[in-house]
Amino acid sequence: MDIQRYVLDKAAGAKAAARILASMNTEAKNRALLRMAEALEAAKDRLIVENRKDLESGRKAGLSNAILDRLELNDARIRQMAVGLREIAALPDPVGAISEIRQRPNGMAVGRMRVPLGVIGFIFESRPNVTADSAALCLKAGNAVILKGGSEAIHSNTAIITVLKEAAGAEGFPEDAIGFLDTTDRQAVMELLKLEDYIDVVIPRGGEGLIRAVTENSKIPVLKHYKGVCHVYVDRSADLSMAEEIGFNAKVQRPGTCNAMETLLVDRAVAADFLPRMIERLTKAGVKVHGCETTRELVPGTPGLAPDDFHKEYLDLEMNCRVVDGIDAALDHISRYGSNHTETIVTENHARAMKFLREADASAVMINASTRFNDGFEFGLGAEIGISTTKLHAYGPMGLEELTAQKFIVFGSGQLRK
Amino acid sequence: MDIQRYVLDKAAGAKAAARILASMNTEAKNRALLRMAEALEAAKDRLIVENRKDLESGRKAGLSNAILDRLELNDARIRQMAVGLREIAALPDPVGAISEIRQRPNGMAVGRMRVPLGVIGFIFESRPNVTADSAALCLKAGNAVILKGGSEAIHSNTAIITVLKEAAGAEGFPEDAIGFLDTTDRQAVMELLKLEDYIDVVIPRGGEGLIRAVTENSKIPVLKHYKGVCHVYVDRSADLSMAEEIGFNAKVQRPGTCNAMETLLVDRAVAADFLPRMIERLTKAGVKVHGCETTRELVPGTPGLAPDDFHKEYLDLEMNCRVVDGIDAALDHISRYGSNHTETIVTENHARAMKFLREADASAVMINASTRFNDGFEFGLGAEIGISTTKLHAYGPMGLEELTAQKFIVFGSGQLRK
Repeated sequence: MDIQRYVLDKAAGAKAAARILASMNTEAKNRALLRMAEALEAAKDRLIVENRKDLESGRKAGLSNAILDRLELNDARIRQMAVGLREIAALPDPVGAISEIRQRPNGMAVGRMRVPLGVIGFIFESRPNVTADSAALCLKAGNAVILKGGSEAIHSNTAIITVLKEAAGAEGFPEDAIGFLDTTDRQAVMELLKLEDYIDVVIPRGGEGLIRAVTENSKIPVLKHYKGVCHVYVDRSADLSMAEEIGFNAKVQRPGTCNAMETLLVDRAVAADFLPRMIERLTKAGVKVHGCETTRELVPGTPGLAPDDFHKEYLDLEMNCRVVDGIDAALDHISRYGSNHTETIVTENHARAMKFLREADASAVMINASTRFNDGFEFGLGAEIGISTTKLHAYGPMGLEELTAQKFIVFGSGQLRK
Repeated sequence: MDIQRYVLDKAAGAKAAARILASMNTEAKNRALLRMAEALEAAKDRLIVENRKDLESGRKAGLSNAILDRLELNDARIRQMAVGLREIAALPDPVGAISEIRQRPNGMAVGRMRVPLGVIGFIFESRPNVTADSAALCLKAGNAVILKGGSEAIHSNTAIITVLKEAAGAEGFPEDAIGFLDTTDRQAVMELLKLEDYIDVVIPRGGEGLIRAVTENSKIPVLKHYKGVCHVYVDRSADLSMAEEIGFNAKVQRPGTCNAMETLLVDRAVAADFLPRMIERLTKAGVKVHGCETTRELVPGTPGLAPDDFHKEYLDLEMNCRVVDGIDAALDHISRYGSNHTETIVTENHARAMKFLREADASAVMINASTRFNDGFEFGLGAEIGISTTKLHAYGPMGLEELTAQKFIVFGSGQLRK
């Protein structure tokens, strides 16, 4: 197979499909999504058979049990995928919304209209449920999508996409609306990333390695987050029992996620009161806490810090703790080591709460809430295709609206430029 | 000079300055802008002396009179630069605006806060007034900027930046808030484009060659437009005298701009009525019209079309004319040859007006108005740093708001994720 030709054909098909998708009305898109949900449930046995092939090769290739678990499809997971599609069908359609109409002095009305982005390249790893979810989000926002999953899930993904394509096709959607690179050739992604005349944006979702490789090689704009090095800062005016709950929840509730806390920053003024019980509770829950010198004086037996630890995204029951001289030192630490993901202050002091809200540079900045809330569902977007930690186009969870753009529209009556 | 080290130092300085700028309040920023305006007027003699050096080398290097004219500074132009800065001071500050606060079921309030982008790399050609304007826009939106002007304006730009820096410094702004690569080494831009850890966005402004070179070499996201191949479509239900005025204005009022019309599309149903007088008027004004076969039958003597003409941005008194079979054919033509810049329909038919508004894919789509209105001032943004014809982040004229991002903010009272 000539891989360059193959990818170019997919991209050209997607671009042609995008023009048709952009003019599909909400009813038609929702009908397709509901049919896709039904079709997945109806195809459940076939999907499980195909998924077993991936699981077997994965076992032979020595994939970890954690990865094999994420890869596995079963009745409940397929049902959950269908529920996801129905939820997306129920969300409001962002496309076509007109806003900010202003009357100009010459009588023209100038406003904005929300339009699809066009063609989205979505490159992801492992979990097959992401396949259905992302295809559905792109379709609802009026975009064509080209999906490229990990080679470990090739059979599962091919089967899922086939089902989705058939269902969408039966509702009159062009075949190339949901494109899929059904190859394990790594060169396919490299070819895709060159096609800036066909693809409008690339969204990689997976480990830092994947995201760096995509960013470094892409001629197309990339929406991404590299990693989540999130902080909780416990201010001198914090309600210390609230701080303990938030610190515990932010680390322990699901440590493998990007919005889990990696470093706890504690104002020196309350460190002696707060740290011993906080660290005791974390340690009891199996968390390994690397402490700064002051932390280790206050809580003897706490392991020390390696030079690089403040940069680490542990994604595990492991974290750092540092005592700082107040809010400015906390903000300095975050500016230096943070990854623009999620930052929380715990305080009852209004001025410092608002200062932190303004000055911490992250996609989500919180007062008195767990970092774990930085998520499209929790924020009320209904769904998310990823979280952006760069500021261009989207900053934070990306829902349907972030899969669209706004063009200017002008209602004139013969105006001429003087 | 070690150019890599030099550019890296500028970028690191800008990143540090950006953090300070982000927390500057509106009053402080406006004071600096007004002082910069005064300082430019006070330094007028010095600026003109430095500008003469550029004009002399330009003349020796054989630059065209048009370029030399754009390069020239005089009393009136310096006054105009100062007026521009005062206008930017008078615009509302986008930074810190909080919007879309929603109450979540668990009692958290989730909203968005507008924040600066950070560090902007601005790479431009020729006109020295762009220097002051872009520095002022970036500063007002709370961003640090690194400017790189064309080598033909190096003395003028160095002088302008020195004046602006001194004035901003006197109002307490860090020196690196307005950075400037005072070198004519082309490698400087290449080094700049690698520094994705320091610079958040690059905005090139100039010819297509500059913009392509920046886009192809940048590791940093780029906001740009390549060219403006804009169309006016005269529908069968157009008011034909309005269509004639709009067609004439769109081409002739200032043909060297990106929002001037390059191709006139005419519905076959009105071509015989409309085209003879339209082409006569254009021709009388010195416009060379390349016509399709039907055009040439209707208006004998019209020159023909070369295969590539529909892709051309003439930037001159030259254009194409094509007769099409109604609105779908017009939209097909625009989809194939358009550059996502500006598209206008002239019609009295509501359904077709709205169809065109929805389906034409461009940064500005207009009903019954000249394409020449696609401009930040004309649209009421107050000022513009450029026009984006890609959909990510900004689509159309970019004003102060487009130089910012929105982060999520959360007002909690101890919420934990379950």
